[in-house]
Amino acid sequence: MPRKYAIIGTGAIGGFYGAKLQRSGLDVHFLINSGYESVKQYGLVIESPDGNFVLPQVNAYNHVSQMPTCDVVIVSLKTTHNYLLSKLLPDLVKDDGVVLALQNGLNIEPCIADIVGDERVMGGLCFICSNKVGSNHIRHLDYGTIALGDYASNYHPCGITQRMKQIAEEFQRAGIPIQLASDLLLARWKKLVWNIPFNGLSVVLNATTEQLITDVHSRRLAEELMREVVVAASSCDRIISADFVQKMLDLTAKMKPYSPSMKLDYEAKRPLEIEAIFGNPLRVAQNSQIQVPRIAMLYQQLQFLDAHNR
Amino acid sequence: MPRKYAIIGTGAIGGFYGAKLQRSGLDVHFLINSGYESVKQYGLVIESPDGNFVLPQVNAYNHVSQMPTCDVVIVSLKTTHNYLLSKLLPDLVKDDGVVLALQNGLNIEPCIADIVGDERVMGGLCFICSNKVGSNHIRHLDYGTIALGDYASNYHPCGITQRMKQIAEEFQRAGIPIQLASDLLLARWKKLVWNIPFNGLSVVLNATTEQLITDVHSRRLAEELMREVVVAASSCDRIISADFVQKMLDLTAKMKPYSPSMKLDYEAKRPLEIEAIFGNPLRVAQNSQIQVPRIAMLYQQLQFLDAHNR
Repeated sequence: MPRKYAIIGTGAIGGFYGAKLQRSGLDVHFLINSGYESVKQYGLVIESPDGNFVLPQVNAYNHVSQMPTCDVVIVSLKTTHNYLLSKLLPDLVKDDGVVLALQNGLNIEPCIADIVGDERVMGGLCFICSNKVGSNHIRHLDYGTIALGDYASNYHPCGITQRMKQIAEEFQRAGIPIQLASDLLLARWKKLVWNIPFNGLSVVLNATTEQLITDVHSRRLAEELMREVVVAASSCDRIISADFVQKMLDLTAKMKPYSPSMKLDYEAKRPLEIEAIFGNPLRVAQNSQIQVPRIAMLYQQLQFLDAHNR
Repeated sequence: MPRKYAIIGTGAIGGFYGAKLQRSGLDVHFLINSGYESVKQYGLVIESPDGNFVLPQVNAYNHVSQMPTCDVVIVSLKTTHNYLLSKLLPDLVKDDGVVLALQNGLNIEPCIADIVGDERVMGGLCFICSNKVGSNHIRHLDYGTIALGDYASNYHPCGITQRMKQIAEEFQRAGIPIQLASDLLLARWKKLVWNIPFNGLSVVLNATTEQLITDVHSRRLAEELMREVVVAASSCDRIISADFVQKMLDLTAKMKPYSPSMKLDYEAKRPLEIEAIFGNPLRVAQNSQIQVPRIAMLYQQLQFLDAHNR
């Protein structure tokens, strides 16, 4: 019998990965807020350079109480909605199941562990360019790898665990590339090396990644922000090399022009994921007396813009 | 015989002060780029809480070669046009005359001294809310004091000189409040304490002074930027007290909602005065190995926005 997956938040991330998992034969159940009626009636439409496909029939829910308990509960909400998780998760995840948070930012897993226990949490970082372009329509643009890591209290590194391998196998069978991260917190910080400059500056400067990486001043600023993230990570004893910063810059220069999710959220006047991506890393650094003035300034600018955006 | 004044740049600043000087009986000659035909034909229209007035007839020029030599040449161009001064000034200022730069930013007077000599330069900082709202129409909103200082090589403090008193007397007779600044460089840095946060953030965050001072995050950021300006000033041995920062914040909180000139320039897609107000102070600090990361970041952000604004 295929394992049961729940997708909490059927947007650009959850919709895309969930659809691929269902297509591979897994039993997937989608909790949907915006677009529920449309997905219920017409299924999910996925555009992707790997091949377009349609799932005419999916298990769509607009209320968690109707969902079966699942082996793997994927959290792919915006972090701004994580306050809902204390109501959504407890009855949804099997006793020997796991919650897999596919969200950016810091301090995600400890908050989920507070709800379901340290033993039932994993995390993943999605390296993907993907947008929700219609109520039941996801457009995957590029990339797609997930860095998958297991969680233990205080982000103690877990190495490669058995359940990581099991999930990786199911994802890979579904055509989703997986990297196994033996240290989830390090993986989170490495993701922030990109997310902090490019999500933040794309909103503040109203720019695509291509414009930011092409202009000499914004590219330099992005690099300086990346270096501050590396310094902040060191306050958690996570060491990121200077080579990695250079690699992220080079990778961005090769990307197709892209509006990061925070820019799309800002344009759609949705709340920005400021606390998970900026506030939490900032506070971690500041609690260790480490100065990251550019991250702090970007945080303040985003707070101002978010507050005046609605 | 009244002294001859030239106004180089008849905009929100030069148009307003020049009109007041002419109304008081001085012989004023206006060099005008945009709006020349209109001013030539209809004169200048000044709206002001101190009383509206019209000068139906003014000495308007669109070429410097037609202007008489003057005792006081007021430079009220945007600093982005200061590259024109080497052609405009040499034949315009009398041998015993003086060029008075009414511009924001740093390193203004040394550049003018390179053209007319150290002995013929003075500087002034305008504390005024004023906009050019039509081709021959200036709207003065609030304030209006000029901090006037004399210049000597390398900004060596001059004290209160005779020619400062003479100009102050003529301005005050014209209804323009004057503060005498015995140390012009200190006066410039003090002006930057306000200009750097509020000109910069008003552009980057698309906000009025009122929005910036009301929001808790942008107000805090403005304060941190002010403190960096104080630190940068100390690299020139100019000491600004913490009280002064607080005074500027309080003053801004009491101002009517206002769009600083840099925001108006940005909206009108005119070049921004980035180098005078941000670049020069930044380089002064960096040359003394003083770190001002927030000013540096604001400079980079403005460079990006300016480059993508046309």
